[in-house]
Amino acid sequence: MIDAVLIDELKTLVEPGKVLTDADSLNTYGKDWTRQFAPAPAAIVFPKSIEEVQAVVRWANQHKVALVPSGGRTGLSAAAVAAHGEVVVAFDYMNRILAFDEVDRSVTCQPGVVTEQLQNFAEEKRLYYPVDFASAGSSQIGGNIGTNAGGIKVIRYGMTRNWVAGLKVITGAGELLELNKGLIKNATGYDLRQLFIGAEGTLGFVVEATMRLERQPKNLTAMVLGLPDFDALMPTLHAFQNRLDLTAFEFFSDRCLDKILARGDIPAPFESHCPFYALLEFEALSEEVANAALELFEHCVEQGWVLDGVISQSEQQLKNLWRLREDISETIAPFTPYKNDISVTVSRVPAFLKELDAIVAANYPDFEVLWYGHIGDGNLHLNILKPDNLSRDEFFARCATVNKWVFETVERYNGSISAEHGVGMTKRDYLGYSRSAAEIACMKAIKAVFDPNGIMNPGKIFV
Amino acid sequence: MIDAVLIDELKTLVEPGKVLTDADSLNTYGKDWTRQFAPAPAAIVFPKSIEEVQAVVRWANQHKVALVPSGGRTGLSAAAVAAHGEVVVAFDYMNRILAFDEVDRSVTCQPGVVTEQLQNFAEEKRLYYPVDFASAGSSQIGGNIGTNAGGIKVIRYGMTRNWVAGLKVITGAGELLELNKGLIKNATGYDLRQLFIGAEGTLGFVVEATMRLERQPKNLTAMVLGLPDFDALMPTLHAFQNRLDLTAFEFFSDRCLDKILARGDIPAPFESHCPFYALLEFEALSEEVANAALELFEHCVEQGWVLDGVISQSEQQLKNLWRLREDISETIAPFTPYKNDISVTVSRVPAFLKELDAIVAANYPDFEVLWYGHIGDGNLHLNILKPDNLSRDEFFARCATVNKWVFETVERYNGSISAEHGVGMTKRDYLGYSRSAAEIACMKAIKAVFDPNGIMNPGKIFV
Repeated sequence: MIDAVLIDELKTLVEPGKVLTDADSLNTYGKDWTRQFAPAPAAIVFPKSIEEVQAVVRWANQHKVALVPSGGRTGLSAAAVAAHGEVVVAFDYMNRILAFDEVDRSVTCQPGVVTEQLQNFAEEKRLYYPVDFASAGSSQIGGNIGTNAGGIKVIRYGMTRNWVAGLKVITGAGELLELNKGLIKNATGYDLRQLFIGAEGTLGFVVEATMRLERQPKNLTAMVLGLPDFDALMPTLHAFQNRLDLTAFEFFSDRCLDKILARGDIPAPFESHCPFYALLEFEALSEEVANAALELFEHCVEQGWVLDGVISQSEQQLKNLWRLREDISETIAPFTPYKNDISVTVSRVPAFLKELDAIVAANYPDFEVLWYGHIGDGNLHLNILKPDNLSRDEFFARCATVNKWVFETVERYNGSISAEHGVGMTKRDYLGYSRSAAEIACMKAIKAVFDPNGIMNPGKIFV
Repeated sequence: MIDAVLIDELKTLVEPGKVLTDADSLNTYGKDWTRQFAPAPAAIVFPKSIEEVQAVVRWANQHKVALVPSGGRTGLSAAAVAAHGEVVVAFDYMNRILAFDEVDRSVTCQPGVVTEQLQNFAEEKRLYYPVDFASAGSSQIGGNIGTNAGGIKVIRYGMTRNWVAGLKVITGAGELLELNKGLIKNATGYDLRQLFIGAEGTLGFVVEATMRLERQPKNLTAMVLGLPDFDALMPTLHAFQNRLDLTAFEFFSDRCLDKILARGDIPAPFESHCPFYALLEFEALSEEVANAALELFEHCVEQGWVLDGVISQSEQQLKNLWRLREDISETIAPFTPYKNDISVTVSRVPAFLKELDAIVAANYPDFEVLWYGHIGDGNLHLNILKPDNLSRDEFFARCATVNKWVFETVERYNGSISAEHGVGMTKRDYLGYSRSAAEIACMKAIKAVFDPNGIMNPGKIFV
């Protein structure tokens, strides 16, 4: 446990007023978007420089104090939750963009830069930061790197990993490492940068990141297609992917759409009611591309894969179509959803989804199951809504059984129990469904290399 | 040292005849394309399955025998050289393509599959494996992964790393790890797959790889541009990159072109003689794109950045233009070049190149310096030709001084002493110019995790 003397020592390492211990701050900075764990940090520290982060980590090593990194706290796996008297290291004051290079198309950021801030900065420079997701307005670059954030454009642009050209990290041992220095090609031994991406702060803290930017997409155009069944999704994806460079291929079920339309503020894409919907997006770079998209649509209709469809003709229509997909998570939140974020290889998605659907339907016929996700990359968000006649506790207790079925099925399909949300504490006990005992042993040994005293976000990913 | 008893034991682990100890085999399989180290392996073993590789690694652990992996042996850093009585593990008989999935656009390969074999397989499936380089006809996938091979299309498609969806490896401890299983999204802890990519066989051996494929490029079109000086390269790259998705942006100096044209079998791109040349490539997907390329060319001419140029109008012309760049390495080989493969961030290339040019010119005015490389990704191949009046030994002795200057300059520019060839033994003593002591210590500790007895390609990357 941390005593007042230690907290006073911590205060000497940062600027005055940059250590907080009031109840409100502890409650706010001690949790992320998950709500399973009661926040209970000992203090919140706000470093303003790399040197201050390093001093805090060295102090923590000296006194064996556990540290939890805190970015935008939009995580969905409790990786940024401090529930056991840890000191939270919050990067809110390390939120500046430090450098930009037009030729390299690179931006050097402090870890507290908000995703949207980077996206806007790129736009000012007539460039594009392509990692995007619903929480981009709050999530921070440091957290994105820690979880290797994905989102809605992965099919074209990949995960956050693809955009990290260089990293400065303070390891758990308190050492500053400058990894890869913004280079495109660098074959000088193990690429340690890759280890820190997706490590959820368990090896060290990102204190600076050089992110790559891309040219701006031109004339982005979305189509929403209505499909007769889930099996029609894959041939449709395949047909479009063979001729167009898609920037997104998302899907959602009719139940998701019903919830969205019930809000009353988003127009229906078209009149037909279909069991499944696909949202695809591409750059209509030329007349030829636009024509190809329409030909592909007609082809899919002829094949019986698509029942109806709509194509955006303006910025506004593009936005409205995207809301059908992007607003699902927020819209279903009041229904107390049990959420799972899983992936399999794209080719196995249809069989996998059917199997899970059948399991849930057979065992809990009163559960409403909503599917949506980034189908173009095999990432499914399974959502089960709480029936009105069940209490919250009873519902989540039953969902624990669902968890087991879901993860056993994931394992049989060689899939991932966490496609993009990370492991944190919520998936920790299930890690073995996706990673072997030998792999987990290697991970623990690697953690010991960078964090010999086990002070960096302990209890996350594994115990 | 390995005795006959041990070799006999080794023979029981693989099929009859799959352990060789004759002088010819030892000489052939003991070296790569570097020639600095005399090959001296104890034996060559040819496993035919994952189980056999695992048995060999376990045997090596038991008897503390060092193993060296051998693929196409086209490496340029002596990472696949067995100069100290090691047993070479050659993957020549693990050369089959095991599976293909059209929806996932993935191919599962044994490590001995030759790069060109994968490229051709993809083409048969009307898809594309985009990693390409001069030695693609001999290099193997396992070796490509071990060195994170780059080549001529990195600017658009990235390195080998980008195309590895899953890996099976036998670690130095003899354990089989199945890493990432072909998933696109997988946020379940440290991505160990990334560690094995570029590890030059020092952590374990790749025994199976699932590689991703891409849609075939359409109507590839190349331009060769003549430039008045090196400074004109960057604004030219910048102008083209802002409007076109380039698939390549290469450069070479007039001295390289002179050597190519002296062969007599490749036509000159145009009549003008220019100090520098750029070769750029793009997909002419539409009339609009082709017109944009011509407009950009005119713009660059107006700005004085480009003096002359040519655009390919056919497959054959495309090939001929590429030969101007691709055949340089082979063409200058008889001139006993001292070669260096270095990189800096793209924006720093002009200053870096000028500085190195000046250093060499001031100290060795009789040295002929040839520059070429993948300028779009900051990767420069520095080549110095042996003057006729110097002996081979004397020349290489003087080049050792050059090495020091080059690497000191690389360090000052935050660059890489090995952009794409790897470290192996040739760059090992210079690793500190690109990686800090703390990083190297971490790398060694990570090696100890996967290879506790230090039997996997010892002495490569670091001692």
